[in-house]
Amino acid sequence: MRILHTADWHLGKMFYGDYLTEEQGYVLKEQFLPLLKDEGVEAVVLSGDVYDRSLPPAAAVELFDEIATKVTAELHIPFLVISGNHDSASRLSFGSALLARQGLYIAGDLDKLTGPVILRDEAGPVAFVLLPYAEPADVRHFLDDETIHDHQKALEALCAFQSRGCDGMRAVCVSHVFASGGKSSDSERPLSIGGTDLIDSAAFDRFQYTALGHLHGPQQVGRPEVRYAGSLLKYSFSEATQKKGAVLVDLDGDGKVSSQFIPLTPHHDVRILKGSFQDIMEREDDRTGDYVLARIDDTEPVLDGMARLRKKYPNAMALEAPQRCVSASAGDRDFNIRGTTEEQLFSSFAAAMRPDQPLSEKETGCLHQLWDALRKEEGGGIL
Amino acid sequence: MRILHTADWHLGKMFYGDYLTEEQGYVLKEQFLPLLKDEGVEAVVLSGDVYDRSLPPAAAVELFDEIATKVTAELHIPFLVISGNHDSASRLSFGSALLARQGLYIAGDLDKLTGPVILRDEAGPVAFVLLPYAEPADVRHFLDDETIHDHQKALEALCAFQSRGCDGMRAVCVSHVFASGGKSSDSERPLSIGGTDLIDSAAFDRFQYTALGHLHGPQQVGRPEVRYAGSLLKYSFSEATQKKGAVLVDLDGDGKVSSQFIPLTPHHDVRILKGSFQDIMEREDDRTGDYVLARIDDTEPVLDGMARLRKKYPNAMALEAPQRCVSASAGDRDFNIRGTTEEQLFSSFAAAMRPDQPLSEKETGCLHQLWDALRKEEGGGIL
Repeated sequence: MRILHTADWHLGKMFYGDYLTEEQGYVLKEQFLPLLKDEGVEAVVLSGDVYDRSLPPAAAVELFDEIATKVTAELHIPFLVISGNHDSASRLSFGSALLARQGLYIAGDLDKLTGPVILRDEAGPVAFVLLPYAEPADVRHFLDDETIHDHQKALEALCAFQSRGCDGMRAVCVSHVFASGGKSSDSERPLSIGGTDLIDSAAFDRFQYTALGHLHGPQQVGRPEVRYAGSLLKYSFSEATQKKGAVLVDLDGDGKVSSQFIPLTPHHDVRILKGSFQDIMEREDDRTGDYVLARIDDTEPVLDGMARLRKKYPNAMALEAPQRCVSASAGDRDFNIRGTTEEQLFSSFAAAMRPDQPLSEKETGCLHQLWDALRKEEGGGIL
Repeated sequence: MRILHTADWHLGKMFYGDYLTEEQGYVLKEQFLPLLKDEGVEAVVLSGDVYDRSLPPAAAVELFDEIATKVTAELHIPFLVISGNHDSASRLSFGSALLARQGLYIAGDLDKLTGPVILRDEAGPVAFVLLPYAEPADVRHFLDDETIHDHQKALEALCAFQSRGCDGMRAVCVSHVFASGGKSSDSERPLSIGGTDLIDSAAFDRFQYTALGHLHGPQQVGRPEVRYAGSLLKYSFSEATQKKGAVLVDLDGDGKVSSQFIPLTPHHDVRILKGSFQDIMEREDDRTGDYVLARIDDTEPVLDGMARLRKKYPNAMALEAPQRCVSASAGDRDFNIRGTTEEQLFSSFAAAMRPDQPLSEKETGCLHQLWDALRKEEGGGIL
């Protein structure tokens, strides 16, 4: 059976104030769907974080609807989806019992879990064990098992529950977890504080292939058959050098697995530009439409840098100058503004603007008159 | 064909701070579903406002999922749903192309409209023309028809678009509009300002039956075959005397229609209690769990009335005393607090509390000292 493993679509993601829905739509419609057809894919697995948030924008819902409908109703490929920690399990699994009959298997709400999804190839059945992301407390409550207190135990218990009846079958696990040894990026939301979210990948030993989601960099964990597909696009500048795409998995009749990474390429890359501001502005670059972060090594302030950068890179998202001397007077910003009078505030401002020429007596007198007038206007004493 | 016409479920509705989801679930699961079976219903029509808001709470989504799944997958009854002005068309119609193959026909997004849904009985086909609520501007854009500027024209154009191919068939229209002549309640959100939302019910002349949603009181409009089913529950006290339920419609082979209203009864009624506060508290009442508004005719203030009312009626939602003398000093509350000093504020307070004994000279002196000290503490002049 030929399986395409994808993960972490984060539809409706905002990237520095811009929705990425159009870019996501481009990659999914122009590259992902053709790939399914061209490669003769027989099952698609999406390992969680379909949406970027529990209440995704309408355009993101429409996009997922379009893709899911095309995969199942037009290409007739079973599509297996779990909810991730960014998804609302209830919302994602609306209509799941009905949709399953159309080949769209969505596992979200624990209450609606159905056990393994059994698909078939010429060698026999293949069990897909769908493990939606769930808090340990929810699994404890759902399985009525008071011993469940951490992610490891919750995953094992849920896995046992969802694996029932597939002993001896070839089996694929779909899970959204932080597997111990995995490498994280800036755009993953921590599952819990302090590492209690880590899962020992031995939990997946029983499976011929484990299709993981959550970490945005594609990577294997322990053995090549336990794998993160990584996110659909680069969702943070810390992912600038990562490859993005999906994993094409071939599972043979004996349960042997081979896999290859298929890159997906959006219109706009996410890149970090380095060097001096002047270098960056003068350097030749034929991809000025990319989402860029300019990390300049200038030590002096660059005036109006962002606006100038955007003339060359209209999708410039940020400008960082880590080497810039921090002004010695920065500590002055700590003063308590509520404990300072307007006169004091203005005097500081005047001193900062004209450090070599304090206010003259005449200026000070003029200011006093002004303050008095203002105070009267506002009703006596309150400004 | 036997059709059940229901409307305006408003799942996830909040009523004076309480979610009604449990009550809605009770009526739907314990009365609505059995009714479908007992009465041999062959098609269910839900005329919009499935949810109370575009982003409904998860519990409301789960409830609709459960009901829709039971109607279609367990009872095998086609379920036809349109989005109303409270629904998010995109969100409601997620998966609609796939769900339609399971007998759940949801019309929301204009882009996904499919023309009439054709069902059959022993006499032949019956066309269901689903007209989701849509703003005139959206219909204008969708149909690329610049002449569409009001609800009437939008409805007619959308109706023509959705009716294509069903000439000569018996046809049922499902629409969420404010039909001219209909009687409104407090809990319907106006579709537009100033009556431009009114639809002439002649637009539905072609249909054997028109299943309307939007107005919460069950009523016919013009002729008995153009009908509002009304809302599932009473969603405002202005609906206290309305009947709530669904309409059982029999459409015969010649297109003749007969209909009857089937009441649905929640655990808790919505009632307005009248009389003096004392009467209400002393009167016998065996339905003290109802949602009540006490509209008392007392002219004197009732101290701690709400708390006392709730001892008898734990679901008391409001207490109104329309006859109570309005204090002549109410106008005093109009003063501009920002243009008033603390001293002035305190003097007003002191005068209100001790109207017959102004502040003595000693008291005034003491206050001045206090203000000065406070002002210094806060940093001079700013309080």
